[in-house]
This record gives sequence, structure tokens and C-alpha cells, in this order.
Amino acid sequence: MRDFSRDISALALNTATIRQWDLRHIVDNCAKAGIKHISPWRDQVRSEGTATVRRWLSEAGLHPSAYLRAGLFTYADREAAANARDENFAAMDEAAELGCRNLVVLAGGLPKAADLPKERNIEAARYQVGRGIEDMLPRARDLGLKLVVEPLHPMYAADRCCLNTLDQVLDLCDELDPASEVIGVAIDVYHVWWDPRLREQIDRAGSVNGRIQAFHVNDWLVPTRDMLNDRGMMGDGIIDIPKIRNWVESAGYGGPCEVEIFSDAWREREGQEVLNTCVDRFRRFV
Amino acid sequence: MRDFSRDISALALNTATIRQWDLRHIVDNCAKAGIKHISPWRDQVRSEGTATVRRWLSEAGLHPSAYLRAGLFTYADREAAANARDENFAAMDEAAELGCRNLVVLAGGLPKAADLPKERNIEAARYQVGRGIEDMLPRARDLGLKLVVEPLHPMYAADRCCLNTLDQVLDLCDELDPASEVIGVAIDVYHVWWDPRLREQIDRAGSVNGRIQAFHVNDWLVPTRDMLNDRGMMGDGIIDIPKIRNWVESAGYGGPCEVEIFSDAWREREGQEVLNTCVDRFRRFV
Repeated sequence: MRDFSRDISALALNTATIRQWDLRHIVDNCAKAGIKHISPWRDQVRSEGTATVRRWLSEAGLHPSAYLRAGLFTYADREAAANARDENFAAMDEAAELGCRNLVVLAGGLPKAADLPKERNIEAARYQVGRGIEDMLPRARDLGLKLVVEPLHPMYAADRCCLNTLDQVLDLCDELDPASEVIGVAIDVYHVWWDPRLREQIDRAGSVNGRIQAFHVNDWLVPTRDMLNDRGMMGDGIIDIPKIRNWVESAGYGGPCEVEIFSDAWREREGQEVLNTCVDRFRRFV
Repeated sequence: MRDFSRDISALALNTATIRQWDLRHIVDNCAKAGIKHISPWRDQVRSEGTATVRRWLSEAGLHPSAYLRAGLFTYADREAAANARDENFAAMDEAAELGCRNLVVLAGGLPKAADLPKERNIEAARYQVGRGIEDMLPRARDLGLKLVVEPLHPMYAADRCCLNTLDQVLDLCDELDPASEVIGVAIDVYHVWWDPRLREQIDRAGSVNGRIQAFHVNDWLVPTRDMLNDRGMMGDGIIDIPKIRNWVESAGYGGPCEVEIFSDAWREREGQEVLNTCVDRFRRFV
């Protein structure tokens, strides 16, 4: 297993972790901190322009490890479906323009129902997701992109992402892209730490060359006060991150480890304190 | 599949659903409503005495479908372990005194760590749970009890229950009680609805005679505002309950269907309104 205690060259910062800074500040301060990878979000990149951000990153010696994000394939009607498809194809173009090979794909939850907040058919939603990803494959292949599909914790199944285990995403990968040319998976400790079959699923992912495309770190707090914005900083919660990283590296992954923390509490702190803490905790708890 | 629209004889009321009433009120009003099964909690039964409650139930024509609950096997030290063991053995005796054959067993989350809210070792916690259940088996067998183990949603893995899929509980059942003499499983739609492998797991449970000992109904709200006390009334959320009940009945289960709703919102309503709504929704959405 790589030794991160003295070498943070694998640290990737997901820019949502420090939303109190704009992208320019994040880029400058990551460079100063010796960070080599960042994963920016579409809204941040689009407001500056892909060419500008690409130049910033290049000048700062930063590699765009992933672009966030495409997906949300579970539509209630054709108009919404067409709009989402347009967005997804634009996201692929932007990733390519940015020089970022990995585009993160989030499935989406249950579609809106006419008489209820959501439809009661998760199988249908999952089928839609498969067709949505399939639809993106030729373009992604042409652009040389990897679509990085991320299973989300089962507590998000209804409203955010109906792909909820690594096994389930790997089944989809095997169906749509058995040779792992275009589709990869992101393994985020927050979403998978609880899974009793995690190790065998990671081994399964690793058995296909190039399937594991991302590894995300953060922590699960006890108690968790909010399902969306109460993720913990590494070391503050109960996830044995080195154990899972060891499994992921034993399965062949040697890429960036991305710090992605959605947290109201950390968003109230000063940006530099958050960045310093990410680096310190990365050395000690990842 | 049984037709519940005109026949509520399978309805079991978990008494936590109407905590605004004491047990005597619940018993009387369930009997008036034509309900045949209730599942009471230890605190309610102990404060009245098992003999008294047994008489109440008998006079009201109510069958105690389950007794809640034993378990919480994940201890940080020997003293806590000994206390919990005493409680679990007392719970078995009480269930037998009450004439209730099914004792619900909740695993417990991660044990308290010295320097953290919880230890970071879910495998160790799961091992402790297995040993804790094993320890109860001879006594349960002597008393003619079934220990009904319930997997809880993965969002409870850290703080309530480290058994999080039906498959995982079935693995434990196969290890400790392959003939299904003493251990059964409870399938609660709230905890399992998201699982992409749910149907095959239910079929697996049904392949062992007597393994499925309980089926619980309620609903998953969108949004869910609280991880513990924001469960929905059947019909208010996104779970396709009849689909899952059909799978469970196709797997051979024909027992009570228990309404178990932990909800701050429903606890603010008048008890009779809650009971009436349970019965109405049971007919229409279960």
C-alpha cells in the first residue's frame, strides 16, 4: 500500500469540499499546498470557460482527475429526458475540452410521479439508467472519455441515485462495456463502507483492467445529523479508510484518492483551514 | 397473494406505532378495530407484568405476534456485555411468559471506542453479533422461542445494527441454525426495499422452511427528514409494498404483516386517527 504519510501526490481535491472558495482560489491554494489533482464541478468550470480553466490548471501544475457531473437519467417525461440528454452530451464535450478523461456519472433517483413525489418503481428507474449510459457510450468513446459510474449509499436510492452497491454497478459495466473501454466505477468509502460483501466486490472490480477509476475518501459521522450535508472529515468518523484503500490498491488501483466532503459544518470554516485539515488528515487517516 | 382489501386478519400492530397510547389503550382499541395481532415492547409489558398483559391479550382476542426486543450484542467491555446478556435472557423469559413465540433480535451497531464515538471495525462487531446470538440459542430452544433477526437499512450500520442485508442475516442463520429451528428473519420493507438483490434473497429465505418469521410494512418518504423518526405511513412514500409482499408470500410466508412506524409526525396525531389510518392504508397499500 502506498505511504501517504509523507507523500500527498495522490491527493485529489473535489472542489465541493471547499465551496467557500471560488475555483480560482481553489486552484491557487491547491498548487501552494503541493496538491496535484482536483475534480471540479460543471457550474464552476462553465462560468469561467473550459479553455480558461484548462490554462489555470496547467499553469498550476494541477491535473483534472474527474469532472462532475453527468447522469440523472430517470425522467418522468420526454421533454425532461431530452434536456438531460443535452446536458450530458455538453458535459462530455466540456470534459474533453478541459483535458479531463474521467466524467463522473450519477444515476438519479426515482422519477417524479404524477400523483406522488416519486414513482414506486425502482426496477424501471434502474432500467432507464442503463439505457441512459448506453446512449452516451459512442460519444464518450469518440472523445476518449471514461464514464465513471458511482454507486451511492442506499439511503439515496429514492431521491439521488438508484444504483446502490458496487456489485450492481459492476453488473451494468459487464453488460454495457465488458472490456472496460468506456465505463469505470468510482468507489467512495462513504457509500460502500457498510457493505458486507465489499471486499469481494472490490476484487471483482479489480479483475477487469481499468474498471476502478476513482477512490473517494471522507468519513461517516456518528451521529449523522443530515443525510446530505453531514459527511465527516477523514478521522472524525467510523470508517476504516486504510482498510478499504488497501483492498482497492490490492485490486490494482494506483490512481488519485479524492477528498470529497459535503458538509455544512466544514463550509462554515475558513477555506484555508479546511484545505490544511484535508491534507493533514489525508496523511494520517487515509 | 392474500386479499387485504376486505380482510385485515393478518394485520399486526407494532405498539411503537401509537406511543401516544399506553398498552391498555392499544389493546382495547385494536380489539375494537378487529385487529388480531400486536407486537408489544418490553418496557410496556414489564411495567404491567407479563401475566397481566397475557390476560389482557387473551381477553381481547389478540395474539402477540412478536416481542421487542433483545440483542444489542456489540459491547465495548465485559461489564456491558454481562448486563446485555442478562437483559437478553430476561427478554426470552418474558416472551415465553407472554405466550409469544417470536422474539425480535436487533444486532447493535459499532461498539463504543475509547477515543472515538465508535470503533472502526465493523467486521469485529459482526463477529460479536454472531457469538451473541449463538449464546442465546440453547435457552431459546428450551423455551420454544424463535429469535427473529432483522437486517436494518445500511444507514443504521454504525449506530444501531451492523446486519444490513437479508443475505447477510441468512448467512448467519445458515451458520448457526441450518435447519431453521430457532432463528428466523424479519423482512421490513423500509430496510430492504432498495436492495437490487431483494427478490433472490427473499427466495433464498423462503427455501428454508420457517425462516421468514415476520414481514413489516411502512413507507419511505421523499424527502426523509430524519434518519430515525421519519418513517412514512403506507401509501405516503415510494415503496411498492404489494410487490415485496407478493415476493414474500410467493416464498411461502403466510403470517402476520406488521405495521411498524417510527414517526414524530404520526406521534403528534390523535391515537385513534393513527389506528384508523393504519387499517385503511393496510387495506389499500399493503
